[in-house]
Amino acid sequence: MQQHTVDVVVVGAGLAGLSAARAARAKGMSVLVLEARDRVGGKTWNRELPDGRAVEGGGQWIGPDQLHVNALVRELGLETYPTFMSGDSMRLVGDEVRRFAQDEDPWTDEERSDINQAVAALERLAAKIDPQTPWKGRTGEEIDKITFENWLTTTCATAAAREFFTGFLAGIWACDVWEVSLLHIVAGIAAAGGRVERMTGVEGAAQQDRIVGGSQRIALAMARELGDAVVLGAPVRAVAQDADGVTVSADGVEARAAYAVVAVPPALTSRIRFTPALSPGRDQFMQRAAMTNTIKIHVVYERPFWREQGLSGELRSPGSALALTFDNAPRDSDLGVIVGFVEAARATAFRRLTEFERRRTVIDQLVLAFGAEAAAPLEIIEVDWTAETWSRGAHQILMAPGTWSSLGRHIREPEGRVHWAGAETATAWICYMDGAVSSGKRAVEEICRRARR
Amino acid sequence: MQQHTVDVVVVGAGLAGLSAARAARAKGMSVLVLEARDRVGGKTWNRELPDGRAVEGGGQWIGPDQLHVNALVRELGLETYPTFMSGDSMRLVGDEVRRFAQDEDPWTDEERSDINQAVAALERLAAKIDPQTPWKGRTGEEIDKITFENWLTTTCATAAAREFFTGFLAGIWACDVWEVSLLHIVAGIAAAGGRVERMTGVEGAAQQDRIVGGSQRIALAMARELGDAVVLGAPVRAVAQDADGVTVSADGVEARAAYAVVAVPPALTSRIRFTPALSPGRDQFMQRAAMTNTIKIHVVYERPFWREQGLSGELRSPGSALALTFDNAPRDSDLGVIVGFVEAARATAFRRLTEFERRRTVIDQLVLAFGAEAAAPLEIIEVDWTAETWSRGAHQILMAPGTWSSLGRHIREPEGRVHWAGAETATAWICYMDGAVSSGKRAVEEICRRARR
Repeated sequence: MQQHTVDVVVVGAGLAGLSAARAARAKGMSVLVLEARDRVGGKTWNRELPDGRAVEGGGQWIGPDQLHVNALVRELGLETYPTFMSGDSMRLVGDEVRRFAQDEDPWTDEERSDINQAVAALERLAAKIDPQTPWKGRTGEEIDKITFENWLTTTCATAAAREFFTGFLAGIWACDVWEVSLLHIVAGIAAAGGRVERMTGVEGAAQQDRIVGGSQRIALAMARELGDAVVLGAPVRAVAQDADGVTVSADGVEARAAYAVVAVPPALTSRIRFTPALSPGRDQFMQRAAMTNTIKIHVVYERPFWREQGLSGELRSPGSALALTFDNAPRDSDLGVIVGFVEAARATAFRRLTEFERRRTVIDQLVLAFGAEAAAPLEIIEVDWTAETWSRGAHQILMAPGTWSSLGRHIREPEGRVHWAGAETATAWICYMDGAVSSGKRAVEEICRRARR
Repeated sequence: MQQHTVDVVVVGAGLAGLSAARAARAKGMSVLVLEARDRVGGKTWNRELPDGRAVEGGGQWIGPDQLHVNALVRELGLETYPTFMSGDSMRLVGDEVRRFAQDEDPWTDEERSDINQAVAALERLAAKIDPQTPWKGRTGEEIDKITFENWLTTTCATAAAREFFTGFLAGIWACDVWEVSLLHIVAGIAAAGGRVERMTGVEGAAQQDRIVGGSQRIALAMARELGDAVVLGAPVRAVAQDADGVTVSADGVEARAAYAVVAVPPALTSRIRFTPALSPGRDQFMQRAAMTNTIKIHVVYERPFWREQGLSGELRSPGSALALTFDNAPRDSDLGVIVGFVEAARATAFRRLTEFERRRTVIDQLVLAFGAEAAAPLEIIEVDWTAETWSRGAHQILMAPGTWSSLGRHIREPEGRVHWAGAETATAWICYMDGAVSSGKRAVEEICRRARR
């Protein structure tokens, strides 16, 4: 049993935990980071392509408004490059594939105006919600009692708007429209600056840039700086607090510290034994903040043949297993790479297929959209985040009606000497890489304020 | 480290686990039950009154339709007695207390007919849902996408009906109307025989009888039969499966068995380390089947002074902390005992009060209803089930929209050699004591069917 004594012990070496450790060290505190996996990065995870380049098995995009992650990338000396997005995009409507130029609107005027009025209504609601405290105030309480679908049904008249918002929720919140409260979505928009377009878009928006070498490099670079202070393969099993400090016990390692930052999601925190027990409110919150259900799939081809046909690789097909695909070849690779996401109930159904059936499903869909050449991928790289013991899902928490308003305050409220970090605790860009980075820094600021008292 | 080798190891000595162990032994199998607490009974827990008699800190009532628990009570030689329910009942409407005779309807004709048509509509839906598989079929899928409140708003016109159903959900599902899907409620009704009155009523219904000596006696009697096969203070930490069997590791005890029955709720199963990991679908189900949030409070007086005023002790006040109270004096006690329930968001708010404020809140409410004598209780016995580390809430699971239909099948689907029991896995009287008892027997039947193959 390794024994350590430090100022701050951090649970989890994802972006949140490593940012916390880095911030604590910058303040002159000694730190130790305990990580269950044999790697750092959490829900950022580079997967190797056949040519040795990396694609992102998890979180990958950063946008210009995401100040924390952009600053960190610069500080770490990493480079970014623009997401590939040229050529026409495709929409699968029933069995029919339709093609649209980048500047062409796939909707009729009536549909577009239906979508626009609903987006404006959402943004007006977002302006009334403080992303620091979505649970406060009348508006928050009211819109937490209805599902997003309730609002959608009464707000939009067209099937196109329904399709748009179904895709919006699947793509950004990894859920179905009836699973979450309207407040959950509105709080997310408020925390992203209040503009839907900044969440859905590429250039000038949240999908603008990628990290050269893959997003896990951010975590790898922080871990390199932290050196021996990061211990891998050390799942934390217990956190005991007393008047003087915290004892954190992991497999093979025990650390004593003045404070702990727990930087893993609520669904993982539930597995840690706390002494004394966490407050009942916090426990209820953890029980109800489930991880969403996502499988991320890269389909790798010898070359990006769709580009030759003037296609961007973007395919929207809300009813299919892969509701959304993009061209995700890294800048330095000559391979063709399509990335797709399987989410929510579709992920549960997809997972029950055999490997052969899953492959068939994915390929059939891509052949329909991109033609016969899509039938013969070199490789399919499937990352099922729900099957990852140390994630239990990705990349959002699922907040059903009533959860934010009755239990939301427990998302960041410290429990004794235990402070909470993690992308879901962010107040800007919740459940984005940027949110993870800022949450780690915020947890350390909380500790500094206490230590000064 | 104690080592055991048995046919079946059972996790949890609540009613489900003990019933499973009893059923397995009756089939000639050797069993071991591992229980985290230093007592058996799970969510049945006798609390001592000042005169040494027992009241039930948790589940307490059984009804004539609950065949499994009734049979068990008889087999164990325990006695029952009718729930006290004579005299007038009270309703708090705003600050006004209204009194009603048992056979008097508190609603106007219009209100009564609004409630009745909604009850009939619920029962018609329940007739379409198979409680074995609520996730199957069109009706189930559709009514799982809306909250109970959505349905209520479109089905009922009167505030009285809203109050009735708010109380119905708080009392039976321990939740607010916007927190769960309509399917969750309809499945519960279907599993209770399809008749709302059989759930809400006393005589001839689910609240008809109590156990002499308190409901925990059922578990205590089963544990006595099982003798050394029940190990207390042994929280199970890990379950490892291989081709030949299961190894279950608890603090201080390790057991090897052919099969395991896990008879604790999903929120507790989440804390156990499974090797290999449970399927992603099961894991998602566990994340989303949170325990509901309940505090059960007994207020103990020298005598049941309300009876002298011709009052039953029943008080319905949906807006107050104690939404529902009853006279809960055990048959053999001369004390006056009022039991009340604080549920859902009201429990979260109540818990944030100081002990003094909580006492004030409870007493003020009882004084308003029952008069000045209610101001001086001998004792207040508060059981906060959410604060119980080995329960994490009571007595229901909270199934938000989409959960039953997308993940419900995982509620009982065995994972290798691990079978599931627990009141929430029942197909009749879900989350009742009866459901706990039948679930344990059903899990053992599954194992017998496998063993015969």
